[in-house]
Amino acid sequence: MGNSIGEIFRVTTFGESHGVGIGAVVDGCPAGLEISLEEIQKDLDRRRPGQSHITTQRNESDTVQILSGVFENKSQGTPIALFIPNEDAKSKDYDHLKETFRPSHADYTYYAKYGLRDHRGGGRSSARATAAVVAAGAIAKMLLRKEEVKMGAFVTQVGMLNVEYRERIGTGRMLNEEVEKLVAVAESNIVRCPDEKFAEQMISLIEQVRKDGDTIGGVITCLIQNCPVGLGEPLFDKLQADLAKAMLSINAVHGFEYGSGFDGASKRGSENNDEFYSEGEKILTRTNYSGGIQGGISNGMPIYFNVAFKPVATIVAAQESVNLDGDSVDVKGKGRHDPCVVPRAVPIVEAMAAIVIADHLLRNRASKV
Amino acid sequence: MGNSIGEIFRVTTFGESHGVGIGAVVDGCPAGLEISLEEIQKDLDRRRPGQSHITTQRNESDTVQILSGVFENKSQGTPIALFIPNEDAKSKDYDHLKETFRPSHADYTYYAKYGLRDHRGGGRSSARATAAVVAAGAIAKMLLRKEEVKMGAFVTQVGMLNVEYRERIGTGRMLNEEVEKLVAVAESNIVRCPDEKFAEQMISLIEQVRKDGDTIGGVITCLIQNCPVGLGEPLFDKLQADLAKAMLSINAVHGFEYGSGFDGASKRGSENNDEFYSEGEKILTRTNYSGGIQGGISNGMPIYFNVAFKPVATIVAAQESVNLDGDSVDVKGKGRHDPCVVPRAVPIVEAMAAIVIADHLLRNRASKV
Amino acid sequence: MGNSIGEIFRVTTFGESHGVGIGAVVDGCPAGLEISLEEIQKDLDRRRPGQSHITTQRNESDTVQILSGVFENKSQGTPIALFIPNEDAKSKDYDHLKETFRPSHADYTYYAKYGLRDHRGGGRSSARATAAVVAAGAIAKMLLRKEEVKMGAFVTQVGMLNVEYRERIGTGRMLNEEVEKLVAVAESNIVRCPDEKFAEQMISLIEQVRKDGDTIGGVITCLIQNCPVGLGEPLFDKLQADLAKAMLSINAVHGFEYGSGFDGASKRGSENNDEFYSEGEKILTRTNYSGGIQGGISNGMPIYFNVAFKPVATIVAAQESVNLDGDSVDVKGKGRHDPCVVPRAVPIVEAMAAIVIADHLLRNRASKV
Amino acid sequence: MGNSIGEIFRVTTFGESHGVGIGAVVDGCPAGLEISLEEIQKDLDRRRPGQSHITTQRNESDTVQILSGVFENKSQGTPIALFIPNEDAKSKDYDHLKETFRPSHADYTYYAKYGLRDHRGGGRSSARATAAVVAAGAIAKMLLRKEEVKMGAFVTQVGMLNVEYRERIGTGRMLNEEVEKLVAVAESNIVRCPDEKFAEQMISLIEQVRKDGDTIGGVITCLIQNCPVGLGEPLFDKLQADLAKAMLSINAVHGFEYGSGFDGASKRGSENNDEFYSEGEKILTRTNYSGGIQGGISNGMPIYFNVAFKPVATIVAAQESVNLDGDSVDVKGKGRHDPCVVPRAVPIVEAMAAIVIADHLLRNRASKV
Repeated sequence: MGNSIGEIFRVTTFGESHGVGIGAVVDGCPAGLEISLEEIQKDLDRRRPGQSHITTQRNESDTVQILSGVFENKSQGTPIALFIPNEDAKSKDYDHLKETFRPSHADYTYYAKYGLRDHRGGGRSSARATAAVVAAGAIAKMLLRKEEVKMGAFVTQVGMLNVEYRERIGTGRMLNEEVEKLVAVAESNIVRCPDEKFAEQMISLIEQVRKDGDTIGGVITCLIQNCPVGLGEPLFDKLQADLAKAMLSINAVHGFEYGSGFDGASKRGSENNDEFYSEGEKILTRTNYSGGIQGGISNGMPIYFNVAFKPVATIVAAQESVNLDGDSVDVKGKGRHDPCVVPRAVPIVEAMAAIVIADHLLRNRASKV
Repeated sequence: MGNSIGEIFRVTTFGESHGVGIGAVVDGCPAGLEISLEEIQKDLDRRRPGQSHITTQRNESDTVQILSGVFENKSQGTPIALFIPNEDAKSKDYDHLKETFRPSHADYTYYAKYGLRDHRGGGRSSARATAAVVAAGAIAKMLLRKEEVKMGAFVTQVGMLNVEYRERIGTGRMLNEEVEKLVAVAESNIVRCPDEKFAEQMISLIEQVRKDGDTIGGVITCLIQNCPVGLGEPLFDKLQADLAKAMLSINAVHGFEYGSGFDGASKRGSENNDEFYSEGEKILTRTNYSGGIQGGISNGMPIYFNVAFKPVATIVAAQESVNLDGDSVDVKGKGRHDPCVVPRAVPIVEAMAAIVIADHLLRNRASKV
Repeated sequence: MGNSIGEIFRVTTFGESHGVGIGAVVDGCPAGLEISLEEIQKDLDRRRPGQSHITTQRNESDTVQILSGVFENKSQGTPIALFIPNEDAKSKDYDHLKETFRPSHADYTYYAKYGLRDHRGGGRSSARATAAVVAAGAIAKMLLRKEEVKMGAFVTQVGMLNVEYRERIGTGRMLNEEVEKLVAVAESNIVRCPDEKFAEQMISLIEQVRKDGDTIGGVITCLIQNCPVGLGEPLFDKLQADLAKAMLSINAVHGFEYGSGFDGASKRGSENNDEFYSEGEKILTRTNYSGGIQGGISNGMPIYFNVAFKPVATIVAAQESVNLDGDSVDVKGKGRHDPCVVPRAVPIVEAMAAIVIADHLLRNRASKV
Repeated sequence: MGNSIGEIFRVTTFGESHGVGIGAVVDGCPAGLEISLEEIQKDLDRRRPGQSHITTQRNESDTVQILSGVFENKSQGTPIALFIPNEDAKSKDYDHLKETFRPSHADYTYYAKYGLRDHRGGGRSSARATAAVVAAGAIAKMLLRKEEVKMGAFVTQVGMLNVEYRERIGTGRMLNEEVEKLVAVAESNIVRCPDEKFAEQMISLIEQVRKDGDTIGGVITCLIQNCPVGLGEPLFDKLQADLAKAMLSINAVHGFEYGSGFDGASKRGSENNDEFYSEGEKILTRTNYSGGIQGGISNGMPIYFNVAFKPVATIVAAQESVNLDGDSVDVKGKGRHDPCVVPRAVPIVEAMAAIVIADHLLRNRASKV
């Protein structure tokens, strides 16, 4: 029973890659929120396969339906069920995998855990399941907007190509306007990089990787501005802990760091500490190596974190594997897969982050008498 | 209500730095487990302040009591309550902080969230609260041992001094014996580094940092061997997601990565994939960049991850801050603090990991009819 | 976020009376369970409106679809999503209620809690939502059957007509065969009473009540045989506590009692205690006033409980009420409603009970090392 | 892991009858609440054994300590740990029960579930564990008072002696003053009955029962006034569902009914419906057979419910039982037990109710945007 996330704003997802469809139930969305089907669809379109020549050519329109919880465009305080029918499932493509475990996929572990598996397109383990997350996250974003929280994610690394934003964000307060510009640039190119020159290089690299029948990893950076002070529930449901969990639950993610992150390990306190000052009623910090979170609770400064994605496991070259009987076999990627997952993963990172922040916004309502 | 972790093996902690004491309630520990008070104490001693000249000189014996749940040395299936009285709390040391927010501490965020705070020694936000985690984790370790899971953590980075183990672990199966040797070496030196030469350098560095009135960050690596195949509950309670959450809930942690981690972002699929082969009944992988987890579920290979700690925030030099009225003030560290937190954090990392694995061991009992 | 029930076998429902449809997501169903769509449908047919002349004439086929989690007729260990489209929703029937609160309905409280409401057919508060529970419960029953647990519910009271079974069950062990006969008789008449003579009287009474434009309450008794010893998680998740919660969550239920129930309050210990004896390996009790549960844990004897339903609130006669502005108005029932809810509520009681027992079966797997 | 209750205001208890002591951790209590140790103690004194000649003569002062979460008499938003050391545990009294299952106790089921048990005084299954609930409930009551919710419970039945309050409460709004008077009378006599004449008869009955070496059951009625409109989280966490669960988790409770309860089963809708009217801004009902809850959500009218307790299982007369080997044995009550549990159970019912209401007060903060 690991298919729910959130304590108050609680998202439960269901569905397999090649079944009837996938969906999500959002329980705990407060009543009275304006819900826009178009906006949900817009985020799904950002995640949609086949959106550009550097993504998988599987062609799904990913058209979402609202099954419940919304009446006259308003959330009712009742569960909002979202459903996305599967369309372009070519299950036949996977017949050869019925008895074979693809390297670095979830085939073997699902089989070992459950004693059986839906081999078609990875079944439940397919990244397709993240579409349900994106749909639910779009609802969370509507709640965030109401609270004037702003959020944007973009690609800052593909392979060795690394746009380093940490210092810029960490050493000073990045202005909201600047962030909005970054996001706008990122959304204007197909790799979703906030730096146009880097974007071109990243696209070339991905094209090359595809030609090689190979895949490549990357990093997504997410920025949350205007987050109210006070979100996060120590000791265990610290804001960064719930963000980390949410990110690590995304397919292919192998790392999470916020604020000074892994770089902080090599720093001294005198370099890394964020001194306080006040500006009118507001209390701010001179630097922001804390990444907007102190003691597990947001301090009002921008929250930023990096999410590392390993390269997609499906490659064209033959690889050694075993079948259900333990016999040695060769596996070659057929199916239709992404050479690099990060461009399409940007809305997934945003969705997961939005769900976490929305949940903590509501949880924080009980912090004081 | 964020003071519990785990779904079946569920740990709830309580207590402040300078109150009566701290403790934990472990609910969901199966009945019939041999419980050793001595072993709990042993792990607490590894976390204990004042254990060496490179840690804080606060002197607490951290003597643990079992208040319930154990009868004739066996767990009863009822909640196991653990309590550690506070002894050497010098609350006076903190009087000057009553109205002041220490930079990069939780003082400001706790005050903002709750509208008040226990300023003595950081109150609930103090790293002292992790002693309760270590005590609860010791129970989890007893359950792991019964299932023959082996676990060890050690310090692999202090400041820029970085013992790189990833390649060694990732490129092949590390033998259990080799891990045990690493752990043994790590426990034989006060910085808990598995490489003796590096250990000496790290100790010198920490001594220097202390002399400078400064602090420094570091990295802990954790290895889990013999973990059964099948642990982890996708989609959201993937094993790595729950490990990440657990690690990011530890004070000062700013990053988590498992398997190929952030390095994986710059790799190609053809380099990063782990090919399968079989050895008798067992299915193994040639390399282990997956870090023992695929699709959120353990695959039987060693699980390994890195945890990045920022430098401790309390330093001797004066820093700019504000007080309750928003006035600018200077803050200087008094109290008794660690120049580097990682040596004492090793048992904390282990404890949190043990709690996560124990919980998933029990959750996995419901995976098949 | 109160739309989920169960800790491991976890059911989340969604949907409103006059929306697109209603549904349920069953997370935590173990993999490898044979799932029969026909059986789910069969239970839905038992709850279906319009099934006899003593129920509402709203005509819904309540045809269920499985959206996920089942492949080749086997549960996959992934969430099983079930969906029942709405068909015969006559929303126009409810236009006059847009601004009016029906007495003893949920109209006013939903409006007050959420600040708005879907007035069509009661929206989320409609008993229609229980169809999703019945569908999910059918899955739970498949799990129970695998564990050889038997369950049956029937109507033992309509108005003042009361078939008293407690003494028969309480004073001795009722044989499985006898229970099966009772269930068979109950299912053979439209009021679902296990006593044919009483059934006729109950049907006449309900016909009379309908003619009067009125409604009437009743009681359902549920029996669970062959429940394994050991289910229930004290202190708070005692088996009877979770059964009580499940029953009181059903629309119109106002009371729950198990074993000697309210009668036990007037008894002496010497009358009410159940003496133990053994029969081969089995430990049994001479009487069963404990209702198969002691200390919150099943003892292997039959579990039995009564569930009291108040009369349906919608009646033909004009009743005093208020509208959104607080003005006094008269309300008359239109819509199409049941004169007595208990015949159709039998499968709902069974479904909720099955969900609770299934959940505790799985939870109990973690009770011992 | 069934030792926690509540979603936001979350109480976890621990401890056995004859161990070191018992306690509770209250997580999720909002910060800034005035906490009075004296008031907690006062409620514990109302539950205390040996408080009058009609209760057990076990003599425990039940002195409570606050271990954490309170600083300068204010809740800190951190877990409040409460501890009550055991004092008068005479474990020797239970040596004869080491291998024997007492009829209608939890001895057998605990042994069967966990494979072992703490036989001393019932271990965890002892009603002593409810002292921790009373302590935690006292904190909940402080929160309720702040919200001006009033609550009182009293004994309305002992054996066949039944003070019928339902009609009085159900047919009209009982004034707050009247309730306060009832509570005051109830607290002035040792059986806690709100009717002095009945109280005397009840006391005589209990004295007689004790002389007979027997025990007797009873009913407690609880009234909650001024409860805000809107508490309860349909579909499954309806207010009455959570109250029912809480009550059925109390030792010896076998029944729960609210509003018209089991009587409602024999009523017609035209009799049982509560017509609405308005009084200024307030919307009220002419009668209150709904018991203050409609559709699972409080409607602002008084909430009232009855809780049925079976007779205490320990009696002096010899009873048939079996031992660990399944051999037939005779059991006689030694120990020191209550002839009737309801007088001391009044604060337990209040505590559980207060915990449920406090939790729903906080949960309701997230109902609207």
